Formats: sequence, C-alpha cells, structure tokens
Amino acid sequence: MTGQDLKQALAAFLSESEIVADGQPFLIDQRRRYTGKADAVVQPDSVEKVQALMRFCFEHGIAVTPQGGNTGLCGAAVPDGGVLLNLSRLNRIRSVDLADNAITVDAGAVLQNVQQAAAAAGRLFPLSLASEGSCQIGGNIACNAGGLNVLRYGTMRDLVLGLEVVLPDGGLMSHLQPLHKNTTGYDLRHLFIGSEGTLGIITGATLKLFAQPQTTETAWVGVETIEQAVRLLTLMQGRFAERLCSFELVSRFALTLSSAFSRLSVPVEAEWHVLLDLTDSVARDDLGELLAEFLFECGFENAVLAQSETERLNLWTLRENISASQRQLGASIKHDIAVPIARVAEFVDRCAPALQAAFADIQIVVFGHLGDGSLHYNTFLPEVLGNEVYQYEDAVNALVYEHVLACGGTIAAEHGIGQVKNQWLPRVRSEAEIALMRAVKAQLDPHNILNANKLLP
Amino acid sequence: MTGQDLKQALAAFLSESEIVADGQPFLIDQRRRYTGKADAVVQPDSVEKVQALMRFCFEHGIAVTPQGGNTGLCGAAVPDGGVLLNLSRLNRIRSVDLADNAITVDAGAVLQNVQQAAAAAGRLFPLSLASEGSCQIGGNIACNAGGLNVLRYGTMRDLVLGLEVVLPDGGLMSHLQPLHKNTTGYDLRHLFIGSEGTLGIITGATLKLFAQPQTTETAWVGVETIEQAVRLLTLMQGRFAERLCSFELVSRFALTLSSAFSRLSVPVEAEWHVLLDLTDSVARDDLGELLAEFLFECGFENAVLAQSETERLNLWTLRENISASQRQLGASIKHDIAVPIARVAEFVDRCAPALQAAFADIQIVVFGHLGDGSLHYNTFLPEVLGNEVYQYEDAVNALVYEHVLACGGTIAAEHGIGQVKNQWLPRVRSEAEIALMRAVKAQLDPHNILNANKLLP
Repeated sequence: MTGQDLKQALAAFLSESEIVADGQPFLIDQRRRYTGKADAVVQPDSVEKVQALMRFCFEHGIAVTPQGGNTGLCGAAVPDGGVLLNLSRLNRIRSVDLADNAITVDAGAVLQNVQQAAAAAGRLFPLSLASEGSCQIGGNIACNAGGLNVLRYGTMRDLVLGLEVVLPDGGLMSHLQPLHKNTTGYDLRHLFIGSEGTLGIITGATLKLFAQPQTTETAWVGVETIEQAVRLLTLMQGRFAERLCSFELVSRFALTLSSAFSRLSVPVEAEWHVLLDLTDSVARDDLGELLAEFLFECGFENAVLAQSETERLNLWTLRENISASQRQLGASIKHDIAVPIARVAEFVDRCAPALQAAFADIQIVVFGHLGDGSLHYNTFLPEVLGNEVYQYEDAVNALVYEHVLACGGTIAAEHGIGQVKNQWLPRVRSEAEIALMRAVKAQLDPHNILNANKLLP
Repeated sequence: MTGQDLKQALAAFLSESEIVADGQPFLIDQRRRYTGKADAVVQPDSVEKVQALMRFCFEHGIAVTPQGGNTGLCGAAVPDGGVLLNLSRLNRIRSVDLADNAITVDAGAVLQNVQQAAAAAGRLFPLSLASEGSCQIGGNIACNAGGLNVLRYGTMRDLVLGLEVVLPDGGLMSHLQPLHKNTTGYDLRHLFIGSEGTLGIITGATLKLFAQPQTTETAWVGVETIEQAVRLLTLMQGRFAERLCSFELVSRFALTLSSAFSRLSVPVEAEWHVLLDLTDSVARDDLGELLAEFLFECGFENAVLAQSETERLNLWTLRENISASQRQLGASIKHDIAVPIARVAEFVDRCAPALQAAFADIQIVVFGHLGDGSLHYNTFLPEVLGNEVYQYEDAVNALVYEHVLACGGTIAAEHGIGQVKNQWLPRVRSEAEIALMRAVKAQLDPHNILNANKLLP
C-alpha cells in the first residue's frame, strides 16, 4: 500500500485533523540520533479510533509504532515505515479519586499536567524526571520511567494500579478500577509496563497518589569515597526511612563542570558529593535540626543545609545542569546502568582504569541516583568532534557493560532497551526468558506489526 | 509409573530423608476442605535437587504440585497425583544487605523467621498475616499475599526485588541481585508472583527491607456508616500519609462476636468500627497527641486511643479473633474480595439485602482491610451444620460475586484462585487475557505437569 493509499484508507475512520500533514518532526528522536520513516503519522482523539486503527493495520499487516512525547532516549518511538501512532491527543485527566488515592488519565497526558492535577486535589503524583514538561504518561509506563524520587516512591511500575490497552488486533484490555489488591490469574499489567510499545497501545492508566510533602530539607554532603556515601545512605535509611526521598551522587569532575556552567559556587570541596532531600508529609519544624545533628553525630561534617528555597534550588541546579554542562564539551557516550548499591564503588573503581587503558584521553562524568543504585555513567573523548564519537560507542559500551555485569548490575536501569541495546538482551536474559518473551509477543502480535525490531533482539 | 516405581526412581537423586515416608499430612489443606493424593511427597534440601526433580518429571510427564507451609485458603497446594514437592527444607536466610535494604532467602523460609532476621539487622520486613508462624515466603510470593500492612507497604508483589525459579523443564531462572531499577525486556518476575505454583518452582527471593517503626499509636473509632469510615480514611491519608499503616473495618456484629469470644469489652458503641495504626520510623513523642487532636477536629469523637502496649494488644485481639469467634457458630462461606474503597459502602448496602432475600436466616460478618479496599465478607447459615453449608456455597458465591463485579471489584483480593475460583476467571478476565495466560503456561510448561487444574479455568 503506498503512502497515499494508506492515508486514503485511514481517512475512512480518522478525521482530517487526525492525520498529520507534515509528520517529519515526529520521526526524529530527542537526541537526534535516529531519523525514522513513516507512511502516515496519525493522532487519533479517542480510544475507539485507536482500536479502529489497530484493527485496520492488523488486517492489512501494516507496521505501527506508538509514540508519546517523543522524549525517549533509546529510539523506541522512531518508526521504520507504516504508521506512527502519536498519542498526544488522548490527553484528558479522566478522574481523581481521593478515597482510593488514585488518578485516572489518558496515556497522552503530559507528566507535568498529571502532577498538577494531583496537586490541585491536594495530593502528590511523585514521578519526576527531566523531561516532565513534555513526556507523556503512556511513554513513562511503556519504558518504566524512573527519575528522582524512586528511592521513596518506586519507578513507574510501582505507581500503576490499572491499565487500559488497545491490543494489536484492536481488542481492548481495560482494568482501570483502583484496586489495591487483586490476584486473579497471571499479572498481565506488568508485561505491558516496560514493554516499550511492542505488546499493545497503552491508552489510559489509573495511578497511585500520595500525600503532599509539608516539610522539605535539603543537604549537600562532601565525602572522600563512594563507600562513605553508601555508609551515609545506609545510616540515613535506618534513621529517616521513607523521609529520604532523593540521594544523588556527584563526582568532583561533574560538579566542577556544572558549577562553571551554572555560575554557582561549589557548596563544599570533596572528591564525591551527595545531594539529599528529606521530605515529611506531616509538617515538622525540627526536621532540619534533626538532620544537622545526625550528620554531625555520624561524622559527616563537610556538609551544608539549604537555609532557604533559593539555596535549595541552587543546590538542585548544580545537580540538574550536569548533563547540559557536559554537552558543551562534545557528544558523549552515555550509559543508563544500575548495580547493587553495595557494589557501586567497586564498579567505579574497576571500570575507570579499564576505560583509560583503552582510550587514553577518555573523560568520565559520574553522577546519578545512588539511593537506588543507578548511575548516569557518561564518557567523552575530548579530541573527537560531534557524532564522530559514536564510532567508538560499541567498544566503550562493551567495556562498561562487562564491568556492570561483573558487579551484578543491569545495562538498562530507567531508559529502556529500544533499538540501542536489544542486541545486548541475550547477555542479560537467558534463552528460556527470551523464548518466553517471544511467546508473549507472538500471542499478542502474531503478525509482528507493533514496534517490530525494538526491545527484543 | 506406580508409586513404588516412582519412589525408586526418585531415590536416584534424592536421599532417603528427602522422600517423606508418611506424606498423608501434606495432602490435606488447612481448612480441611480438600484431601489430595500423591504418589510421592518429597522435601529436597537444595535448589540443584529441585532442578533434578523437575528434569525427571518433565522427561516422564509426571505431575508436580509445589507446596510451602500449606496454609493456602484456595486449595492451590493440594495435589491430584504425581509428586508433591514440599519446599520446607529450603529454609535458609541467605544474606542481609543493608546498603540495598534487602534480604535474600530460600523460598521455604517461614515468614516469621524472615521478619526476625530483618529485625536482627535493625530493619523491618513488613508482610504480616495470620499464618505468619507457618506460612513460607515461596507461598507468599506464589499467591501474592496481602495481610495487615498493605496500606503502607503493599502486597508481596511490591516487596519482591528478585526471584530464583526452577522452571518446569528443570532450568533455572535466577535474578537475585538487589536492583531497584532494571528494565531489560518484559518483566517476567511479575508473571511468577501470583502464579500459584503453575509456572515454576520459586526457590529463592530477594525482598525489600524498611526502617523499623519507632513509634506506634493505635486508635479505635466508632462511626455510624461505612461512608464515615471512608471519609476518615481519606482525611487520615491526607494528614498522616504513609504513617497510616493499618485501617481496619469491623461491623457491630463482628465486634459483638469477638468481644464475647475474647472476653474483652467493646471499646465504643457504634454500628461500624475502625481500628487504625499510625507508625513512625522516627521517634516522635507527640504522635498520639496529634492523632487525638485530629480525630477531635474532624468530628470523630467516639474514639479511644491505646494508652499502653496492653491496651493496644487488646484492641488488636478484638480484630484478630473475629474469625475464631465466628467459627464457633458453624462453618461459614467466606469471601476474599475487594472493591474500590469509594464503593465499599455501596457494595455492603446492596449485597446484604440480596443475600437475606435468598437465605432468610443468613448472618453476615463483615470485616477487613478498608485501607486497601479488601473485605473478608463471611456468611453463615445458623441452622446448617458443619460442612453441609458448602452445598449452598455456589449460590451464595454467585450473589456475592455479582455484587462485587457490579461495584468494579475483584473476587480474589489476597488469597488467590487455586481450585476454588478458577471457574470464575472467565468472568473477570477477557478471552484475550486468558489466551495470553495459556500461552505463557504452554511456553513454560508444555506438558502441563506443574499444578495442572489450578488457577486457569
């Protein structure tokens, strides 16, 4: 079917405004690494139309790639022909249910709008990440997004009570009741969460809400080793438990870059830095005092506590600008990895010398969410310009991932697999596991029309 | 293969002590509703022997039923021939990892022993339920156990970081690293959690730990309607958030029974009763005062706060003795159901008259975990003796489940499906969902040797 024929056929059940005239902007991923192609880009405005689209494509064997806010970092939403199905027009907040502490939204709702709808009802939706102003809930679910508050609230997987999914054949799987306990057969919901658009089109979700924090205290602590940072984390979790909301690690080099970029002074001098947030849902005047006392008692004296909201934001700006500050130095080869927290130091100590032995000039920017063991382990080669750096990517990845796996870690913590890492899947999942994944895929999508060549090797 | 031949064949890889001489006690379920049969009852003492057993049974097409502490309430661990595989001898606490806040245990570890191992390390493993002195972690995972602390800590599903599973063909699927973020392909872990022993033999698990509560406050609040109880829950969640650890509902009739049985006086007079626990992981002297003020401000004055550990235990005894007190009145038809919290009142208001219209003398004991929407909705017919009550079970179930489903609820909240409810599965899962479940089952267990005729219809 030519592109023109396809668009004509789609016009039988989609309005003119639902078939995008110039689809080109939707075909390039955020990092500008991949440029896809599509015979049609569509934005249906109802679940029924998504069903009609899938029935049509199922019948005619037409490829479909679902896409939310197009902020993914692994190329999972870049199409390779067929239909690009953009969910942006399914963007309603359907309902807020305080008794069940739940919110039900369309998949195309922007994360920030969901956060705001929760706040308007006096509740917190805790998922928070850099692209929250444009990423969409469906994409967050499809790649099991993580972000800054995982230590306290878990990843997206932990926040989903129910899903509404259009299956590849156009059938609807709908379980949007806010049930906190339900054990009726195998849990299929968790197959769709993290499936990166390969099993079905997520069109709606019921999500957990939480009480809003009433008190927030922020500290920046300098330590000399990662082991000391892990020790602080363990002590803090024993003392403050779920109040410990964020626990970020920043290397001296990462801080130096961000400090210059941000025009903010370095809070303390040290080899390694921890930025932590304590939040309390019951207002408590003495939380800052308790935190200061505790840091002092435990010997973490090279620390500052934010004394105002401005100071707090400045500390977080230093953390958030690391990626941007590093971008000025050239394109980098990034790694979204996690290892058991007890082995983060071992990983960093072993991986850096191996990389330096292979690439004499390599620079390594280490930062990330130590509280949940995930690191953004970014490398760049100062002499190598622009996208030329990617010719070294396989070699750098191989070294980094070997060390990650040797430390019991994962090569994909919170960005997914997409088309960047699917060739690595057989290293981290057994043949039996991949066979089971393929059986699930074949049962739901027998013609392999949905986001083929993503996620699975 | 006769039972004698089978035992001889098993002796090739199991020691004498691993083949149970008198297996009869393992063949009857806790509620004494089902008596199974088995050609051999085995208790292997290593994962490798479980693998050897499964390889043997896979090759010879011999049925295998896994069993933990045999405390299940839906007959999922009652065998129908072949091998009963009891996991009790796989009972080690393998490791406690404070940096990752995780504990790794054998599947046969008794829940209470896991709680104690966590406490010995200064941490909390929060799963808590009536049979915790004998139920085992593997069974808790296989049926996605719930219990008293779900409101704060979630069900077993939320507490599992990693699983070790022997597959039906004897292969091992092992992911016991304490990774808090990991998105490498479809999440197979959640297929095994809640699979009731039909997909694989869980042999080990890595579980989340939490800080231990330092302060606990307990209140008993009388209200006139369930709506008022739900209003209190919503207010409490907004004010005290995750400190609200338990929020139990008890009907006047249930309290009257338990009060007489327990020889404890009724704390307050009311139609409906709420028992709630607030816990704080940071010691806080004023929590009781804050709670008392809040209840007063919100108009819940018909309340008592426990002033001592004895008073606290007495309040909880009233709650915990409801089942036992009711057993004295005869066998009952129990329901493990959940509905959205906002619809609990609607369910109770509609279901009781329907039951009373069909069974004039029926008595209904309503209690449960209102905080997560699940109810133990137990019914009995005073004139009907012993197990004779079960002749009415299908008719009572049909009425109760129709009302549950009309309120958007689930017929299985925390006890599972087993052989009690699998005929109901097609009412709560679509054909496409059951077909996917069957495809998963067929991929892992092509000869259908593992706990056949359980869970799936």
